[in-house]
Amino acid sequence: MHLTHLECTACGLHHEARRLLNLCLRCGKPLFAKYDLARAAQTMTPEALRTRRADMWRYREVLPVERDENIVSLGEGWTPLVHARRLGAKLGMGELYIKDESLNPTQSFKARGMSTAVSMAMELGAQRLAVPSAGNAAGALAAYAARAGFEAFIFMPQDTPRANVIECVEMGARVTLVEGLITDCAAEIARRKEQEGWFEVSTLKEPYRVEGKKTMGYELAEQFDWQLPDAIIYPTGGGTGLIGMWKAFDEMEAMGLIDGKRPRMIVVQAAGCAPIVRAFEQGEDHAAEFPNAATIASGLRVPRAIGDFLILSAVRSSGGTAIAVTDEEMTDAVREIGATEGIFAAPEGAACLPALRKLLDRGVISKDERVVIFNTGAGVKYLECFAR
Amino acid sequence: MHLTHLECTACGLHHEARRLLNLCLRCGKPLFAKYDLARAAQTMTPEALRTRRADMWRYREVLPVERDENIVSLGEGWTPLVHARRLGAKLGMGELYIKDESLNPTQSFKARGMSTAVSMAMELGAQRLAVPSAGNAAGALAAYAARAGFEAFIFMPQDTPRANVIECVEMGARVTLVEGLITDCAAEIARRKEQEGWFEVSTLKEPYRVEGKKTMGYELAEQFDWQLPDAIIYPTGGGTGLIGMWKAFDEMEAMGLIDGKRPRMIVVQAAGCAPIVRAFEQGEDHAAEFPNAATIASGLRVPRAIGDFLILSAVRSSGGTAIAVTDEEMTDAVREIGATEGIFAAPEGAACLPALRKLLDRGVISKDERVVIFNTGAGVKYLECFAR
Ligand SMILES: Cc1ncc(COP(=O)(O)O)c(C=O)c1O
Ligand SMILES: Cc1ncc(COP(=O)(O)O)c(C=O)c1O
Ligand SMILES: [Zn+2]
Ligand SMILES: [Zn+2]
Repeated sequence: MHLTHLECTACGLHHEARRLLNLCLRCGKPLFAKYDLARAAQTMTPEALRTRRADMWRYREVLPVERDENIVSLGEGWTPLVHARRLGAKLGMGELYIKDESLNPTQSFKARGMSTAVSMAMELGAQRLAVPSAGNAAGALAAYAARAGFEAFIFMPQDTPRANVIECVEMGARVTLVEGLITDCAAEIARRKEQEGWFEVSTLKEPYRVEGKKTMGYELAEQFDWQLPDAIIYPTGGGTGLIGMWKAFDEMEAMGLIDGKRPRMIVVQAAGCAPIVRAFEQGEDHAAEFPNAATIASGLRVPRAIGDFLILSAVRSSGGTAIAVTDEEMTDAVREIGATEGIFAAPEGAACLPALRKLLDRGVISKDERVVIFNTGAGVKYLECFAR
Repeated sequence: MHLTHLECTACGLHHEARRLLNLCLRCGKPLFAKYDLARAAQTMTPEALRTRRADMWRYREVLPVERDENIVSLGEGWTPLVHARRLGAKLGMGELYIKDESLNPTQSFKARGMSTAVSMAMELGAQRLAVPSAGNAAGALAAYAARAGFEAFIFMPQDTPRANVIECVEMGARVTLVEGLITDCAAEIARRKEQEGWFEVSTLKEPYRVEGKKTMGYELAEQFDWQLPDAIIYPTGGGTGLIGMWKAFDEMEAMGLIDGKRPRMIVVQAAGCAPIVRAFEQGEDHAAEFPNAATIASGLRVPRAIGDFLILSAVRSSGGTAIAVTDEEMTDAVREIGATEGIFAAPEGAACLPALRKLLDRGVISKDERVVIFNTGAGVKYLECFAR
C-alpha cells in the first residue's frame, strides 16, 4: 500500500521495508514505519471512513500490510469510547471518557499490535514467533499465531496471572514460565532465538506492533469528530501504546485530519515499578532499570523499556507528566470504576483513576477539560488480585 | 419509537407497553414486544445502516426504548463474524463462520439482553433488579445496573465459575450463592421479590432481554449482506438467544430486509443437561425438567426453561434439529478452536464444533453449506475447566 520504508527513531537511518527486521542495523534502537501520507490522505478521508469496517483495519492506508490476504484479523479495534458520566460527576468532571480496550480479542489492546505484527510475519515469511510478555501480549500472540497457522513461543514470568497462561495453552502456544521478570524472559529468547529459528516480536524490537497500537490514536480522533481531547492518561509499561498514539497524531496532522494541537500525554506507572516516572522527575532522557520491580498490575511490571526515550520525549513535548500509584489504589479503583460505570477494568487501566484524582488535586488537570483514560485490559483476567 | 404493545407468545393477549411487566397476566407465559414495522422500515434501510454506530443500537427502530437518554450502553453488539478458514478446511467446509460474542462488554452475548432490559427499567422506573443466573447473565446485569446507578441482586449456584462471582462483586452487585441450580435461584427470588421490592429480569420472564439478543439475528443478516446462512448452531440453555434470532428473522421479513428463507436452527446442549434435545427427539411441545443437571458449561445447566415451547417451535419450523455433546467433547473443542482460529471459546460456544461434526457425519449438514456457529462467551471466564 503506502509503506515506503523503516526509519530509525534514534539515528534516522533508513531501512528497506520489505524485509524482516528487528532493530536499527546501525544503532540498535527501534524502527518506525513510514508512509506516503499525501497519497494515503487522498482516500482515507473522514467521509470515506464513515462506511468502513468496524475494526482497526478501517485505517488501511496507514497500516503496513501490502496485500489484503495477509491480514490476520479477529475483529480488533474500533472499541467503545464510553462517556463516564457517573464517575465524572463524582470528580466534578463533565467530559471524562473511558476508552474500553477490554472489548478486543483476548480482552486487551495487545490484540491490535499482534494483528499487525503477525500479518507482517505472514507477508514477510516468518512462521515461528517468540515473545517475552507480562501476560496480555502473550495471549494476543497465541491468538493471532493460531489464526495464521504459525507457532508461538511464549516466555512469561512464573507469577503471571493464570488466565494468561491458560489462554496461551488453550490456543496451542508453547509456553515457558521463567523465574524472574519480563527482562529475564527477553534475555532467554535472545540466547536461543538464532538456534531455534525464532523471529522475535517483542514490543518495539519489532517495527509493526506499534503500528497496530497507533490505531488507538486514530480512533480517538475519529470518535471525537477529529478533535483530540485535552489529556490522555495511559498505563505505561513498555510504552508502545503511548508511543503509538503519539506517532498517529503526527501522521494525522500530516494528512490534514487534525491540527497541531496535542493532548497532554500522561504516563501512569505502579509505585513498585516506575522507571519512567523517576526519569521524568529527574529530567533524564533515558530511564535506568527500576530495581526489585513488583506490582499486581503485571503489564506495568516492566523495569526497563527500549523505547524509554520515545516515551519521555512524547510526554515532555506534549506538556504532560508521569505519575505513580500504589497497588492498593489500583484495586480500590477497579471497584470504583466497576460500581459507577459497569466496566470491570484491569488494574493497569484502573490505575488511571487515582492518577487523575491526584492531577485534579494538584491543578495539573482542570475539571472542565476533556480527559480520556484508557482501560487497557479486562479485570476478569486478574482473578488473583480480587480474591478478597 | 415504534414499540406498539406486548403480546403473549402463548395466548396472544395484548398488554400495554409503557408499564413494568413480567409474564402474561392471563396465562403466565412470555411476552414479546411488537413494533410498527412498516414505519420502522422507512428509516432502517440497508443504506442508512451503513453509517450507523458500531453496536447493537444501530437497529434503533426495532429496539424498545422510547427516549434516547434512557439507553444504557457499554458498546454491546456488532461483534465480528469471523470466517473460520482453517477450522473449516479441517472439516472440508469453505463457508464456516464463528460469530464471536466474547467481544461484548462482560465477554458474553448476555450483555445485549441486559442493555435493553436495564434501559427499559430506566425508562419505566425500576431501580432494584434481581436475576437468577448461571454466571454470564449475572456479570452482565452487574455491569449495566452499575452503569445506570441501580442496585443488582444476583443469585447464582455456588459452583458458578469464580470469574462470574468476582466480576459481580467488583461491579458492586449484591451476590448470593445458592446451594442448587439456576431453578433454585429463581425460586429464591420468587419468594422474596415482593417484600424486597425487586423487579425480576430473568430470561424471558422479562420482555426486553430477548429484544437485545435478537440483534444477533439482525447482525448476521447485515454482515452477510442480507442473505441468511443455511444453518445456525447455537448453545441453548434458557433459549433466549435462539428465540431472539428467530423473532428477528420474522421482523426483518416483514420489513422487506430479507426473504422468506430461514436458516435451520440447531440447538446444542450438554449431555448432562439436555431437556430440549430430549423433548425434540420425543416429539414433545414442551420440555420436562431434566434430572440431576450437570455440566461444566454453566450456561447450559438449565434443567427447565419457560421458553421451551418457543425453542422447540423455532427448531421444528426451521427444519433444524437438537443435539447433545459431552463435557469432554467441549473441552477438546475449546482447544481445537483455539489452536486453529485463535478464539479462546467458552465451553458453551465450543460445543457447537462437536455438534457440527456429528451433523456432517449424519448428512444433516453438507460441507458446501454456509454455517454459523456461535461463540457465546469467553473461555477465560472458565479457568476451572482448564486447569489440567
Ligand atoms: C493491561 C495492560 N495495560 C498496559 C500495559 C502496558 O502497555 P505498554 O507496554 O504499551 O506500555 C500492558 C502491557 O502488558 C497491559 O497488559
Ligand atoms: C456462554 C453462554 N452460552 C450460552 C448460554 C445459553 O443461552 P440462552 O439462555 O440464551 O439459551 C449461556 C447462558 O447462560 C451462556 O452463558
Ligand atoms: Zn539507528
Ligand atoms: Zn398469555
